Amino acid sequence: MPSDILKSLESLEVDGFLFVGDSICNSDMYYLSHFLAGDRFAILLQEKTAILVSSMEKGRAKKESCADDVSSTQDYHIMDKLKSSGKAELAYPEVLKDFLLDHGISSLGVAYSFPAGIFQQLSRHFDLQILESPAKRARAKKSHQEIECITSAQRACERAMHRAERLIASSRPQGDILCLQGQPLTAEQVRRAIDFSLLEDGCEAADTIVAGGVQAADPHARGTGPLPANSPIVIDIFPRSKTHRYYADMTRTFLCGEAPLEVKELYDAVLAAQEAGIGAIRSGVSGEEVHSIVSAVFLDMGYRERDGCGFTHSTGHGVGLDVHESPSLGEGGERLETSQVVTVEPGLYYPDIGGVRLEDLLVVRDRGCQNLTRFEKSLVL
Amino acid sequence: MPSDILKSLESLEVDGFLFVGDSICNSDMYYLSHFLAGDRFAILLQEKTAILVSSMEKGRAKKESCADDVSSTQDYHIMDKLKSSGKAELAYPEVLKDFLLDHGISSLGVAYSFPAGIFQQLSRHFDLQILESPAKRARAKKSHQEIECITSAQRACERAMHRAERLIASSRPQGDILCLQGQPLTAEQVRRAIDFSLLEDGCEAADTIVAGGVQAADPHARGTGPLPANSPIVIDIFPRSKTHRYYADMTRTFLCGEAPLEVKELYDAVLAAQEAGIGAIRSGVSGEEVHSIVSAVFLDMGYRERDGCGFTHSTGHGVGLDVHESPSLGEGGERLETSQVVTVEPGLYYPDIGGVRLEDLLVVRDRGCQNLTRFEKSLVL
Repeated sequence: MPSDILKSLESLEVDGFLFVGDSICNSDMYYLSHFLAGDRFAILLQEKTAILVSSMEKGRAKKESCADDVSSTQDYHIMDKLKSSGKAELAYPEVLKDFLLDHGISSLGVAYSFPAGIFQQLSRHFDLQILESPAKRARAKKSHQEIECITSAQRACERAMHRAERLIASSRPQGDILCLQGQPLTAEQVRRAIDFSLLEDGCEAADTIVAGGVQAADPHARGTGPLPANSPIVIDIFPRSKTHRYYADMTRTFLCGEAPLEVKELYDAVLAAQEAGIGAIRSGVSGEEVHSIVSAVFLDMGYRERDGCGFTHSTGHGVGLDVHESPSLGEGGERLETSQVVTVEPGLYYPDIGGVRLEDLLVVRDRGCQNLTRFEKSLVL
Repeated sequence: MPSDILKSLESLEVDGFLFVGDSICNSDMYYLSHFLAGDRFAILLQEKTAILVSSMEKGRAKKESCADDVSSTQDYHIMDKLKSSGKAELAYPEVLKDFLLDHGISSLGVAYSFPAGIFQQLSRHFDLQILESPAKRARAKKSHQEIECITSAQRACERAMHRAERLIASSRPQGDILCLQGQPLTAEQVRRAIDFSLLEDGCEAADTIVAGGVQAADPHARGTGPLPANSPIVIDIFPRSKTHRYYADMTRTFLCGEAPLEVKELYDAVLAAQEAGIGAIRSGVSGEEVHSIVSAVFLDMGYRERDGCGFTHSTGHGVGLDVHESPSLGEGGERLETSQVVTVEPGLYYPDIGGVRLEDLLVVRDRGCQNLTRFEKSLVL
């Protein structure tokens, strides 16, 4: 086990830390075991790492996981327990109990997101405490290899963005919408081009945003239908590598046609706010401070958040095995540390105009930051 | 709210049922709200459905969700609570508390997987009970429209399987491996062809299995490297539609070259077990009975499960918004009901031979079942 995780674990003063879930949704579990499974399994962190899987997964877990010890629910007689209790929800905690006792557990830490049903049943036998996951801080700080993974996903993200940009740049305004070869250019068409580009690079993206005009006034609206002419189109791509499972994240805003003055002004304000945010990032500054600096730029330029309009979200977030992870660059955001990877993505949103957002991906360094993003910023195509 | 969910909810004798999570990982939340969000939000089920989202998501939630009422954490003063507590893990349950009180909640149901950290904090103010999700039974039984969604994903699955089959059929054995145009045909190459075919049909697959020879002795091994000649290759594709989010699931086993007698016998045994399983499915039979019938075929033919070899997993599972959901066709499997969609996927696994598995997707009917799968079963290509 990496020494920083062991150190976190020791500071918790429990006999072990337990995770139960699947490692597709619970990235701590993938980080700690390197075992990718869509079905439920358990990880017990002590000085060594033990995992408990179903019997059909035991062979694979021994080959693929980095756990020191692999056992199966069959080793703990799950079928007998199922027969005597009649319910999987009762049999499984009984198996966990025997597994924990076998590892000398009396006091046990679990994370905030641990399943309440299992928590309640294990509480009868162990001193259970809800604590910060020992993986949380370790995951926020990226190794050289993790930064390489994120960078490779970011290059795939940029190639996909170029493809989207070219589609929009090759279209022509016809009335209120953009047309390509005589047909309306749609959000779905651009998203499809992005998806194919990403897959060529071994990446996938569940929910790419291609939102034009008033649709983009909701920062997370995916966007549908014909794209508007003379109006900003927000494209936010956050691909995950299908191989190493690290994410990247980037947003650009494009416009094809004539840019109204107020849109140009929005774009310039967002760009200024982003530059101020990026300029503020270094080890030791808090995420909250960076967010304040970005918010102050908007205020100075006359963009006040009001009634769900303006700058309605935080400045950024960590990126790694999850697309949104620690640290937060917003209210309550903690001190940044060297080798964390974060986004800076201010945006402005108005129901009558739409949205403008710009997002880069940065590595926090001792005296500033390194921008992993290589994609120019230019509104009008 | 659909009447079956309301009925389930009424039978629980609580003032409401609360979900907290993201609707990408928690499919109950997507099912109940039709609101897709990667960040945490809350759903309160009462006679009406209320959802609580971050302020930046409020506009989108009003447009996209089917909730009767949408409020934001800002409406409940999350920023003030964050400032006074200093921690998001404390501020959020305080917001939830006020939201629940506003809806007249005194007793509250939550599901087994509800986050323990929030459970613990809400327990101080409410009578909390861990209960079966009111969505569980409703989700298991599919509507006509849901079956159409699953069927369309299944057609995409079949087109992808055809592409994989053609690649393998066009290859030629050279020594121990398969070659195509003079180069080794790899698991990665076949998986890539499958992924592109799925994307053309608007589907994605996180973890397609293309495992040949001894690799396939682990039922969930993804498979890597050159594919073997004269040896079974297991292909298990479980795509999800990027549009409607329903899954399909199918497995075939192919062999290119000369099939050893023992592999032919394995294949025939798996086919016989699958036919017996499919023949047993009808409304009223239990998942456990279907599994017993399938296991008995293997036993009769001399294939006993031992030391992690043989038929090492259950017979099947429900398929819908999750690829593995209720009902289970295994030990403890409950009674099947009309309009449930399940897989029947027996397999045999031996470390020295590899694996053989066949999987079809079926709709449970009053007097049997309807097979949604349209793909022939033939070992040797």
